[in-house]
Amino acid sequence: MRVFIVHAHPEPTSFNAAMTRAAVDALLDAGHEVAVSDLYAMGFDPVSDRRNFVTVRDPHRLKLQAEEEFASAHDGYVPKLQAEMDKLAWCDLLILQFPLWWLGMPAILKGWIDRVFAVGRAYGGGRHFARGVFAGKHALCALTIGGSAEAYSDAGMYGPLAPILFPIHHGILGFVGFTVHEPFVVHAPARIEEAARGTHLVRYREYLRAITAAPAARP
Amino acid sequence: MRVFIVHAHPEPTSFNAAMTRAAVDALLDAGHEVAVSDLYAMGFDPVSDRRNFVTVRDPHRLKLQAEEEFASAHDGYVPKLQAEMDKLAWCDLLILQFPLWWLGMPAILKGWIDRVFAVGRAYGGGRHFARGVFAGKHALCALTIGGSAEAYSDAGMYGPLAPILFPIHHGILGFVGFTVHEPFVVHAPARIEEAARGTHLVRYREYLRAITAAPAARP
Repeated sequence: MRVFIVHAHPEPTSFNAAMTRAAVDALLDAGHEVAVSDLYAMGFDPVSDRRNFVTVRDPHRLKLQAEEEFASAHDGYVPKLQAEMDKLAWCDLLILQFPLWWLGMPAILKGWIDRVFAVGRAYGGGRHFARGVFAGKHALCALTIGGSAEAYSDAGMYGPLAPILFPIHHGILGFVGFTVHEPFVVHAPARIEEAARGTHLVRYREYLRAITAAPAARP
Repeated sequence: MRVFIVHAHPEPTSFNAAMTRAAVDALLDAGHEVAVSDLYAMGFDPVSDRRNFVTVRDPHRLKLQAEEEFASAHDGYVPKLQAEMDKLAWCDLLILQFPLWWLGMPAILKGWIDRVFAVGRAYGGGRHFARGVFAGKHALCALTIGGSAEAYSDAGMYGPLAPILFPIHHGILGFVGFTVHEPFVVHAPARIEEAARGTHLVRYREYLRAITAAPAARP
């Protein structure tokens, strides 16, 4: 399988970074191909506007979806975005690796979605959900959460995680056609022992091996 | 009342821009003070990392919350962030004005949250929800949505809007203590007649007048 990891954490010694290194190692070990976009290391700019395009459909008024449609038809994306779109089209499995910030993705990752998931490349013309552009491909979120598992339970201050991830799972990954697998979640990695962190990394490797060994498994 | 509008749309002739202009006009007309952060016009950088700080707590390993705690205690934010924090502390009512992109905020606004809502300035030390730093202040989202109201109903492809906005309403605004009012939502402003857009703007002015006339009203 071709696996594309989009990594969104600013600190190279973070547990997120350890998770991405474990994933790359486990996936290569199992014979898969891996591409990584380390958004902070790349200096990825998450702001979506005319900077996305080398083409101009309407110089007077910016309508992003119309500009995206035009750019998709005329090879009109700036090279840095086109490179991300190419990796997205290339992969069989997309992994979004991030810390949950304010119940969502860090802005650098949200903006990667805003800019890369463009009309004509990720959706458009009625292609969404089961008929999505990426139907047949797989995706999952691998994330760290500062708060405890209890805080994300029915009785906790944030409630269960599934509704919190619904915009990402359904509105983003599901919308463009991905089969979305269960997220791999580690709570409060900074507040657990080194050995427990190691156990999470072993579990993560096993989880990825299982998914990539039987990619058609139901999420 | 002091009202702070954080505006996140790249196009000055957009309906989002018309909403912000209508809000400023209605609020000034009613005798309130208004501040606007037009994030695109300001060239706001939404990426959170060491660029947030002029202070350094740990030069070897970036832990954002620890750096925020240190910066909050030592006046350590870059001036552009401090200015946003000052407006946030100043206001009685915060309005987030944005188009819903991928069931969430545009990255430029998510990053404004990521960077401005810092430990020691927006939360920390057990100050959250009812005991939040901004308890007693009010907030609301004013947003446009490309899809129809039907698409955001029980039978629609995205389901109801309330769960989609839960991370913003509960996890962000509610967490830091704001009383969160009902969102003001306009669906598919590009696909309705000019007169209908005008009616929405009139309704929005009336909504803001009602909230600012009776700010303690329950959301």
